[in-house]
Amino acid sequence: VIRAMSSSSSSPTSPYTTLAVSRPAESITHVELNRPEKRNAMNRAFWSEMVECFNEIAADPDSRVVVVSGAGKIFTAGIDLMDIAGDVLQTDGDDTARTSWNIRNTIVKYQETFSVIEKCPKPVIVAIHGACVGGGVDLVTACDIRLCTQDAWFQVKEVDIGLAADVGTLQRLPKVIGSRSLVNELALTARKMYADEAKSSGLVSRVFADKDAMMAGALEMAGEIAARSPVAIQGTKVNLVYSRDHSVAEGLNYMATWNMSMLQTHDVMKSAQAAMEKKSPKSVTFSKL
Amino acid sequence: VIRAMSSSSSSPTSPYTTLAVSRPAESITHVELNRPEKRNAMNRAFWSEMVECFNEIAADPDSRVVVVSGAGKIFTAGIDLMDIAGDVLQTDGDDTARTSWNIRNTIVKYQETFSVIEKCPKPVIVAIHGACVGGGVDLVTACDIRLCTQDAWFQVKEVDIGLAADVGTLQRLPKVIGSRSLVNELALTARKMYADEAKSSGLVSRVFADKDAMMAGALEMAGEIAARSPVAIQGTKVNLVYSRDHSVAEGLNYMATWNMSMLQTHDVMKSAQAAMEKKSPKSVTFSKL
Amino acid sequence: VIRAMSSSSSSPTSPYTTLAVSRPAESITHVELNRPEKRNAMNRAFWSEMVECFNEIAADPDSRVVVVSGAGKIFTAGIDLMDIAGDVLQTDGDDTARTSWNIRNTIVKYQETFSVIEKCPKPVIVAIHGACVGGGVDLVTACDIRLCTQDAWFQVKEVDIGLAADVGTLQRLPKVIGSRSLVNELALTARKMYADEAKSSGLVSRVFADKDAMMAGALEMAGEIAARSPVAIQGTKVNLVYSRDHSVAEGLNYMATWNMSMLQTHDVMKSAQAAMEKKSPKSVTFSKL
Amino acid sequence: VIRAMSSSSSSPTSPYTTLAVSRPAESITHVELNRPEKRNAMNRAFWSEMVECFNEIAADPDSRVVVVSGAGKIFTAGIDLMDIAGDVLQTDGDDTARTSWNIRNTIVKYQETFSVIEKCPKPVIVAIHGACVGGGVDLVTACDIRLCTQDAWFQVKEVDIGLAADVGTLQRLPKVIGSRSLVNELALTARKMYADEAKSSGLVSRVFADKDAMMAGALEMAGEIAARSPVAIQGTKVNLVYSRDHSVAEGLNYMATWNMSMLQTHDVMKSAQAAMEKKSPKSVTFSKL
Amino acid sequence: VIRAMSSSSSSPTSPYTTLAVSRPAESITHVELNRPEKRNAMNRAFWSEMVECFNEIAADPDSRVVVVSGAGKIFTAGIDLMDIAGDVLQTDGDDTARTSWNIRNTIVKYQETFSVIEKCPKPVIVAIHGACVGGGVDLVTACDIRLCTQDAWFQVKEVDIGLAADVGTLQRLPKVIGSRSLVNELALTARKMYADEAKSSGLVSRVFADKDAMMAGALEMAGEIAARSPVAIQGTKVNLVYSRDHSVAEGLNYMATWNMSMLQTHDVMKSAQAAMEKKSPKSVTFSKL
Amino acid sequence: VIRAMSSSSSSPTSPYTTLAVSRPAESITHVELNRPEKRNAMNRAFWSEMVECFNEIAADPDSRVVVVSGAGKIFTAGIDLMDIAGDVLQTDGDDTARTSWNIRNTIVKYQETFSVIEKCPKPVIVAIHGACVGGGVDLVTACDIRLCTQDAWFQVKEVDIGLAADVGTLQRLPKVIGSRSLVNELALTARKMYADEAKSSGLVSRVFADKDAMMAGALEMAGEIAARSPVAIQGTKVNLVYSRDHSVAEGLNYMATWNMSMLQTHDVMKSAQAAMEKKSPKSVTFSKL
Repeated sequence: VIRAMSSSSSSPTSPYTTLAVSRPAESITHVELNRPEKRNAMNRAFWSEMVECFNEIAADPDSRVVVVSGAGKIFTAGIDLMDIAGDVLQTDGDDTARTSWNIRNTIVKYQETFSVIEKCPKPVIVAIHGACVGGGVDLVTACDIRLCTQDAWFQVKEVDIGLAADVGTLQRLPKVIGSRSLVNELALTARKMYADEAKSSGLVSRVFADKDAMMAGALEMAGEIAARSPVAIQGTKVNLVYSRDHSVAEGLNYMATWNMSMLQTHDVMKSAQAAMEKKSPKSVTFSKL
Repeated sequence: VIRAMSSSSSSPTSPYTTLAVSRPAESITHVELNRPEKRNAMNRAFWSEMVECFNEIAADPDSRVVVVSGAGKIFTAGIDLMDIAGDVLQTDGDDTARTSWNIRNTIVKYQETFSVIEKCPKPVIVAIHGACVGGGVDLVTACDIRLCTQDAWFQVKEVDIGLAADVGTLQRLPKVIGSRSLVNELALTARKMYADEAKSSGLVSRVFADKDAMMAGALEMAGEIAARSPVAIQGTKVNLVYSRDHSVAEGLNYMATWNMSMLQTHDVMKSAQAAMEKKSPKSVTFSKL
Repeated sequence: VIRAMSSSSSSPTSPYTTLAVSRPAESITHVELNRPEKRNAMNRAFWSEMVECFNEIAADPDSRVVVVSGAGKIFTAGIDLMDIAGDVLQTDGDDTARTSWNIRNTIVKYQETFSVIEKCPKPVIVAIHGACVGGGVDLVTACDIRLCTQDAWFQVKEVDIGLAADVGTLQRLPKVIGSRSLVNELALTARKMYADEAKSSGLVSRVFADKDAMMAGALEMAGEIAARSPVAIQGTKVNLVYSRDHSVAEGLNYMATWNMSMLQTHDVMKSAQAAMEKKSPKSVTFSKL
Repeated sequence: VIRAMSSSSSSPTSPYTTLAVSRPAESITHVELNRPEKRNAMNRAFWSEMVECFNEIAADPDSRVVVVSGAGKIFTAGIDLMDIAGDVLQTDGDDTARTSWNIRNTIVKYQETFSVIEKCPKPVIVAIHGACVGGGVDLVTACDIRLCTQDAWFQVKEVDIGLAADVGTLQRLPKVIGSRSLVNELALTARKMYADEAKSSGLVSRVFADKDAMMAGALEMAGEIAARSPVAIQGTKVNLVYSRDHSVAEGLNYMATWNMSMLQTHDVMKSAQAAMEKKSPKSVTFSKL
Repeated sequence: VIRAMSSSSSSPTSPYTTLAVSRPAESITHVELNRPEKRNAMNRAFWSEMVECFNEIAADPDSRVVVVSGAGKIFTAGIDLMDIAGDVLQTDGDDTARTSWNIRNTIVKYQETFSVIEKCPKPVIVAIHGACVGGGVDLVTACDIRLCTQDAWFQVKEVDIGLAADVGTLQRLPKVIGSRSLVNELALTARKMYADEAKSSGLVSRVFADKDAMMAGALEMAGEIAARSPVAIQGTKVNLVYSRDHSVAEGLNYMATWNMSMLQTHDVMKSAQAAMEKKSPKSVTFSKL
Repeated sequence: VIRAMSSSSSSPTSPYTTLAVSRPAESITHVELNRPEKRNAMNRAFWSEMVECFNEIAADPDSRVVVVSGAGKIFTAGIDLMDIAGDVLQTDGDDTARTSWNIRNTIVKYQETFSVIEKCPKPVIVAIHGACVGGGVDLVTACDIRLCTQDAWFQVKEVDIGLAADVGTLQRLPKVIGSRSLVNELALTARKMYADEAKSSGLVSRVFADKDAMMAGALEMAGEIAARSPVAIQGTKVNLVYSRDHSVAEGLNYMATWNMSMLQTHDVMKSAQAAMEKKSPKSVTFSKL
């Protein structure tokens, strides 16, 4: 299976230059950061392709769950400073206000690159091996489930290049792990965090011995999710994201309004029947969503 | 003491068919899920009785702290699908909109069943042994302190029956444990989480060897809370719940407005006096609240 | 270095009676709770001096990071009940409403004592040894990074003296550690939490063998922070605090608006240059902020 | 019709002592404040009966719209100070904190008396003649549509009896009329506002010559509302109340989630058909909701 | 000028079938609803073209202000029920949940059609003559400034076709006019509101005798806006929209962060100089934004 | 009385150079913008003195209500561009980020100048004659009640000098008047609004023939407020400001928590007694607050 995933990466039909998109198993989409020779650094093309890619996945009824990983030796070295320096650092304008205006437009565009991951109603599992630096942390904190290898490490690198991280880490990292002291330490000192601390702090929920084991684990977990009712799964993701940003009372109100229609799915009957017959959800066929 | 709790469960005067309510020690109310032959599954009666029960506790000055546990072999198997299927799954209406309207009313009513736990100003300790499935997770996340036995396990079961959990888990679970990746994994895969992970993730704050040890521990902790000023304890719960759903600045503002009157209690003088005399808070008698 | 820190504490020029303020290394401010003979209990003077002290630090371009610690045997015994009893407990007024009004003014003033720590844009590392009780917990939860010694312990003491904690613990503790069950247990039972649990729960991000090791560690971490671009560091703190109290979307919007000007700093070029030359950020000289 | 409404007020079956409830026309419920000899002052019974009455209306599929008015010479003199003084002003408790706690419970209960009006999904038209004082303003600002007679006047009376209005006026009045300066003036000086200013400020949307004309107008308007699809009407009220308390983006999100089921009503086809045939909505028969 | 606007409407190069876009004067974009033979009813194409059109305007530095109006006899008859019925009313899905999911996607897409107007940082003046019905009200409430002719009328028509308005009216109308009673009456009864009431209620800020006078007035106002610093104008719009949805304190914080760069524009010096020389802002040339 | 107010303005003891502070009647503080020869333009001193002045008033138990007006021919010409240009427009910094940082500090400081008005719990009546331009609008929208003379006019002037208003107008103006279209028109075109439109739009609640009449009216209204219970009056202001920035449910919760102590004032009994004896509130003597 892993081979299938890797080989499909070189699919000649992929419309992307920085991503390899494949279907390793039914209903599972694999998105691979695919500039291994550049350590999957995020260049100008990447920032657009991610948006296009996830909007497509969001609309594709044949895709029910996404696995994101990196080709080559590491997950990602983060932003490709050389390639995008012009966008951000040499932005022009007739005066400071106009330069600021243009920079803001760029930041907003770049933020959207990772926000599409959480707007996509299909769950996104990210599988991280080796280095995950700078923009990589922004990316993985926007995913739903984080897995890593024993040799993985994470670095909120931005202060090292003179700026406050502005495409998601400062907003999402504190909401994905429970220790505020650790979040602050990582963001203010740019120190590396290794797999064990990533696990104990809750950044990742599982650590695997190596990339092969992790990819197998990611696919298996994706398979579990893909086998369940897409009405249930996608409703769960939408409401988990919603509840993160709202009070419990607000979240409950939204949930009730959501489910007043979503409970009217045949999936409930099919699933309940299977449950009562002690069958696995995997034995049930659900309509696409 | 445990025996007292168990025997009182069979009190002939209990007005409930699904709950056994007793007073194992002064100021402590014990609420036991009490359909052991049905694995404490939540049937139609349960959803109403919880509301009635906790509203009564909220108004009872003789009750200062609550312990919730399950009778029999497990904490709860969750929703009693057979009994309530009609309520939710076979809701009728003249058209889809009207059916949705009726379903929404039911969901809102069911949500209230657990929200009463956090609206009740008395702290609620929940002691979980064996399985805690589906609606059980909704219930325990609405409690203030979670304890479990070594053999306990938790399962966010809803996706397995084709729906997104809608009576609290998706709203509260992310706010009671720090690892977002874990929350998402549990809710999207319906996998079981055992006691050790429940402890390391922070879902429970203590694990006990068995149910007897846990009940003793729960009662001891309840005793600590019951011995302290009810003005202090209940004000603490109210403001902890408030601050979960508000910014720090909002929480501080509310707290100041709360305490401008609550500091004018004799309990402060009594407690301070005891503290200065190196006496335990337990030696002080506080008026009821 | 430690000696320098200690000796400077006795600086004759310090304008404070409860704090010793020194500069142990370039750009680092050390604020020491300095009433060791009173176990650093927070007396009336303390509540004002903290505000004055942190407002000064906030405005001082020569200070880029703050270390807070306690002189003597413990970090702090918390509020000095004897000294401030009059302020809070014997507040007068012509009737209950007027008394309440006056109490509220006092609480609001006391809350500000710790809120200045998070309003100060310079990161604040707090180093805790021995006891950290009551008001001490309010203080440390308002700091950005928490370190402690192996012999440290924490106690949310307020319920023991008959009141709900009202200067920050109930608002900030749940946002700095991930286990809600633990937060509630600590606040409702006033039990002590020791260093190991403080680490595993995420309250502190590092535990040191003793105070000397901790102070050396704190200074080293402060040095790492002080060496980086103050535009990056202070922007990071400001936005981390902002994002705690806002949804992800709100946080991203604010961040983009913040960085549209902040990216126009020479620090980015200087830092990027150093990074490309594989030099440490410490080799770069940044203008003051 | 008016006579029908009045006579039905004396219906022997009414379960209320302070309210007369009748059905002046199909699907219209008329709730009359009915202690004319006491100028419809709000006594202890009133505060409970309102809750019971509106909860019943909310659940009654035969009621689609509500008209509220006052029997006798004026709409209401407000709170019945004599009758409820004990509840609020002579609340007891063992100390100030406990007294405060009890007072708070009473206020919360009284607030609910008017909040039920906006929680009821059926639109509520209030028709005001003569004086509308104190608690009367709290009541009418919780209604959806306000009509008055030329001789009506409004008075936010609470400062005159030494307290800040606490059952809704300070929260709702600023959200129902556009001039903040006027709101503040009314609440701080307790001056009377007459019908013309009530109309020009937008507090009421129509002024009628006398009570008979107003009641006829109210019934006619109620008829218009009752004739339309209850799915459309009640969804409109629910979302108007929701949007008042949320940002536009939040409101739109909720609306989309609401209507994803509600558009699946036969009422749309029926209504659209009638519209295309140039028939009045009144010619269509809708199922109950 | 009016002629210029009309003739340009028929520009052969317009990429839109439902909109005519022209430049009646420097920096002013005129967007005309242009299906006069269909009473400018909003058909399927319209919902997409609006998004495309306003995104283009947002990015066009030569456009500083927008005027929206309707070609032909009326502003708009609202939604083109015939054309879009399929989208919304005959949405298909394998079960109710899937149908709901698809309907929701459509509603969200349609909501975006008007939200682009307020996301566009250039001010949008809407000039309304004759009927403005249903979707027309959704559209105009998303614009910044509303003008109308003496013969204009407005109708929140949705309840007449069996649904709650779901593309903006229920969210925005209460925030653009001050009388909540009037808003509710309009939305619940679908009655027409004529120009005089539109003016006195604040829905429009000016009423003109006829369309020619209104278009001249709109263009003149647009000219005033276009002549001023685009940094000032667009910053004003962005912050007015922001402050509508936030508390005053939040709005001030955002504003300060916005202006820390925007004040560094040459426009301030140029404008201040002109002001001191008693020259009109129109005499100053500002760089594009 | 007016003479008293004017003469007291020249009080030799006033600590301010831009404000004249006097006590025209018991419990009433009159704050006069007092640089008539400079048309009360807001210079550097003004921005500090306002803060000092209102903080003093907030703490002064002898002051229960404030009247603000302008000495000389007009209310205020707004910001004194000459005097403060250096602060804002010539802010220095080693790079753009540092300049932005410094500008932000200045804006925040200036915002506080008007925010103190609403943080002061005593109601503030502002009486405006002649021109009220730029910063003047920021000031008056932060006051509670606005009165003006027939010759008054208002101008949101900021776009004319190349900037978006950043000290309160864009945040507060939309919340004090009901017509959003008018707010936007005023802010985007900088056109003047005269007294009649100020009245009809609700910006002011009363218009007087001339300044003498207005000052008499302001004093009379201030007298009404000053005569009432300060517990009631100040609680009303605090909660009106709170409810502006919160949902109705949040506002009610805060109100209940506020009044649980504030109802325990002797003022209620004194006021109720007076009311029952048909005496004016003015006949009652209340303790200071």
